Amino acid sequence: MKTSFNVRNERNLTMLVDFYELTMGNGYFNNNVYDKIAYFDMFFRRVPDGGGYCVMAGVEQLIQYLSELKFSEDDISYLRSKNIFSEEFLTYLENFEFCCDVWAVPEGNPVFPNEPLVVVRGPIIQAQFIETMILLTINHQTLIATKANRICRAANGRSVMEFGSRRAQGYDGAIYGARASVIGGCDSTACTIADEMFNIPSSGTMAHSWVQLFPTELEAFKAWAHTYPDNCVLLVDTYNVIKSGIPNSIKTFDEVLKPRGLRPKAIRIDSGDITYLTKKCRSMLDEAGYEDCKIIVSNSLDEHIISDVLSQGAKIDSFGVGERLITAKSEPVFGGVYKLVAIEEDDLILPKIKISENEEKITNPGFKKIYRIFDKKKHMAIADLLTLNYESIDLTDSLEIFNPIYTWKKKKIKDFYVKELLVKIFDKGNLVYSPPSVMDIREFSKQECAKLWPEVLRFENPHTYYVDLSSDLWNLKQNLLHKYSSDYEE
Amino acid sequence: MKTSFNVRNERNLTMLVDFYELTMGNGYFNNNVYDKIAYFDMFFRRVPDGGGYCVMAGVEQLIQYLSELKFSEDDISYLRSKNIFSEEFLTYLENFEFCCDVWAVPEGNPVFPNEPLVVVRGPIIQAQFIETMILLTINHQTLIATKANRICRAANGRSVMEFGSRRAQGYDGAIYGARASVIGGCDSTACTIADEMFNIPSSGTMAHSWVQLFPTELEAFKAWAHTYPDNCVLLVDTYNVIKSGIPNSIKTFDEVLKPRGLRPKAIRIDSGDITYLTKKCRSMLDEAGYEDCKIIVSNSLDEHIISDVLSQGAKIDSFGVGERLITAKSEPVFGGVYKLVAIEEDDLILPKIKISENEEKITNPGFKKIYRIFDKKKHMAIADLLTLNYESIDLTDSLEIFNPIYTWKKKKIKDFYVKELLVKIFDKGNLVYSPPSVMDIREFSKQECAKLWPEVLRFENPHTYYVDLSSDLWNLKQNLLHKYSSDYEE
Repeated sequence: MKTSFNVRNERNLTMLVDFYELTMGNGYFNNNVYDKIAYFDMFFRRVPDGGGYCVMAGVEQLIQYLSELKFSEDDISYLRSKNIFSEEFLTYLENFEFCCDVWAVPEGNPVFPNEPLVVVRGPIIQAQFIETMILLTINHQTLIATKANRICRAANGRSVMEFGSRRAQGYDGAIYGARASVIGGCDSTACTIADEMFNIPSSGTMAHSWVQLFPTELEAFKAWAHTYPDNCVLLVDTYNVIKSGIPNSIKTFDEVLKPRGLRPKAIRIDSGDITYLTKKCRSMLDEAGYEDCKIIVSNSLDEHIISDVLSQGAKIDSFGVGERLITAKSEPVFGGVYKLVAIEEDDLILPKIKISENEEKITNPGFKKIYRIFDKKKHMAIADLLTLNYESIDLTDSLEIFNPIYTWKKKKIKDFYVKELLVKIFDKGNLVYSPPSVMDIREFSKQECAKLWPEVLRFENPHTYYVDLSSDLWNLKQNLLHKYSSDYEE
Repeated sequence: MKTSFNVRNERNLTMLVDFYELTMGNGYFNNNVYDKIAYFDMFFRRVPDGGGYCVMAGVEQLIQYLSELKFSEDDISYLRSKNIFSEEFLTYLENFEFCCDVWAVPEGNPVFPNEPLVVVRGPIIQAQFIETMILLTINHQTLIATKANRICRAANGRSVMEFGSRRAQGYDGAIYGARASVIGGCDSTACTIADEMFNIPSSGTMAHSWVQLFPTELEAFKAWAHTYPDNCVLLVDTYNVIKSGIPNSIKTFDEVLKPRGLRPKAIRIDSGDITYLTKKCRSMLDEAGYEDCKIIVSNSLDEHIISDVLSQGAKIDSFGVGERLITAKSEPVFGGVYKLVAIEEDDLILPKIKISENEEKITNPGFKKIYRIFDKKKHMAIADLLTLNYESIDLTDSLEIFNPIYTWKKKKIKDFYVKELLVKIFDKGNLVYSPPSVMDIREFSKQECAKLWPEVLRFENPHTYYVDLSSDLWNLKQNLLHKYSSDYEE
């Protein structure tokens, strides 16, 4: 079977880079600062769709990219033709060997605004260069995993199939979107190559064209049942669900399956009034003795429509979700950013901050880690605490955390344990992490999301999960802010 | 230089297919109807964002896919492992040779709802199989080209740079999104690999991290100006645009460029109140003698924000547009569909129709072509006319067209000429079309869009361009509708 490793080797994405990473790289070289050690954080500021958390995804593809960074001769000639890069810089690229340290939050973890999902430490020329692909990879898959997680929550235990390839934004949008959908909770995908690459279940039945090809719907259904007697799913809305699709389905089940002692799998409805039609279909199927025949619906579904039809009593066993999942239609941009947070000078870590007139855009400076704090008895997540990298947490004592803006809002935590969220994936350029399979990530994500309180899980006005700063980090940030603001006093 | 041909050969997308295309393929085989000749239309029903037209894009990538259709041994073993496909079917796939006829509207053309953008004729087993990739390819690029066209219209002659790779939905979202953006009118892209593959201009300057790396903003600016004296663009909003960014820019121009007789290229603003800041920057730069220094703005722009700041008198020469372009954020799904419109029986073309309770979802049956009708004097586009394939238009007489729903609304056209929009790209599986370069498509698109009346071009409530049916096609459709509706009469 084709593994994701084979597939990934077919294409090198080194040159998928914003041109300014290259002009800056050449600038670092020209100004002889290229090997200054820099620290970057990748993080996001807002959960899409007003949700309470995101689901981290994309680390495996980030690893693939970083493992394969290499400029071909063609790439170098192309860059030379731009007439702005020095030969020394081009030689550096020609001999490029990735040597950064990289930490990431493993895929499937619930993550929150302002915490670093990826941390990079290395020569500025390298740590800057990989910005575009870190953002592109994590932004895309985290967006889709988060949306899938919402949709699966709405389906409330019913199965959700990812159906969106044809409306995805490009081929990778379909392939890695299917991967991220499964991480977010989908059971299967219609995207065959995603199954082949990642070993996630693929599924599919028939299109309207199958029905149209035959002289009558009944002939089309019978031909299908003869071909797939063990797995017979019929699409019932080509002409008229109630007057034609369901009666012809029942006839097919009676005449083709029953004599062989077989049961039908499901019928699928792809248009029309879902609540009305599924209730009617359910009672027609039940009456004909097909209580076990499942009902699958599709047609521009999302978490809101799913919640809505279920609350109206629609009879649905399984959802096929397409365009609104694969593009995260309601909010199709995940705004992850990648910011310089420190540089090393004479072996000291010098924290850096990005100021903004928009307070929410001010960064958390320094080389940091994330502790997730769990309640010892209930194993529920209480808060995340960002600390400077040298800090550890005393588990023998109680822990006081405070809101980084309304600092008088304090919380004392007892009987807790902690987990460090960031895991090292590259050590001086060497891969030191082995990514789990997609289905294992899916299972892990289910477990970790179950550790969030229901108040964080809800769709409307979820509780804001605590992401606090340690005292050391908070003080460092305040000092830098005061220093810069006095520089630009009126 | 790396050509798009090299890049494309690095990856085979044959298995990027909805699983149901394969279950249907196996079903066609099993029922011995696999070589029945079928006709499919790819078309869309609505222009995104309430616009008046779309810009066709993606044909070159569709050609690449169709030229390279091939199942590897690994693919066949993977499919065999599913235990649902017959060995005969797998042997067919192993020896797959594409043999369909394909027509497409060339890229860059303005296109309208309900007209076929791609037409496929061939054995049903093949014509059905390619559905997923036809839709994925044309849906994605047409979506982005159409959005870019809107944004460039709003920029009203100013240059627009595509900046969105980091927020794209996957790698191909960035690469082919950049390509489609240029087709839609952008001048350049920040996506380096898109330049390398398609020979479209790439551009880029510096990030905030460049400024942060140096002890002061002034040192950062001077280092940049020394590196790029001929092409000096400074990012002025890391700390404070007015108090620091612009004064330091002017100092840099004065001290680094002026002594060498060089002029600055531009400053860039990436945050804050664009209208206020650009006016203020313009007057500070002018006062310092840098009237020729251009002002570039970025930061979550789209056609509405661009129109708005320009109408307020913002002083902007160039826009960098990112996430809202590369994801078509306001409407990120292009709803193209692929429908069976005819089959051949005993050498006769038997038209097929898909009925729906939603009238807009009813298809136009039959094997068709599109005539675009132009005014002979003004060379402006008057209407598109869908006809059956055998029909031709008599140019010596006047032509009467009518609204396909409100049939009493008629229009008599005189002094016109016509252009057939659909061009043959594959003849029995052989490529018979040579796609133009992206920059040529961009130029072509500019010319063709200029043939649309201003009423069709406007953003709000554009005039609905006529897409009418010939009398023969209209009659055919009515006959089929009446036939089916009598089948399901109450």
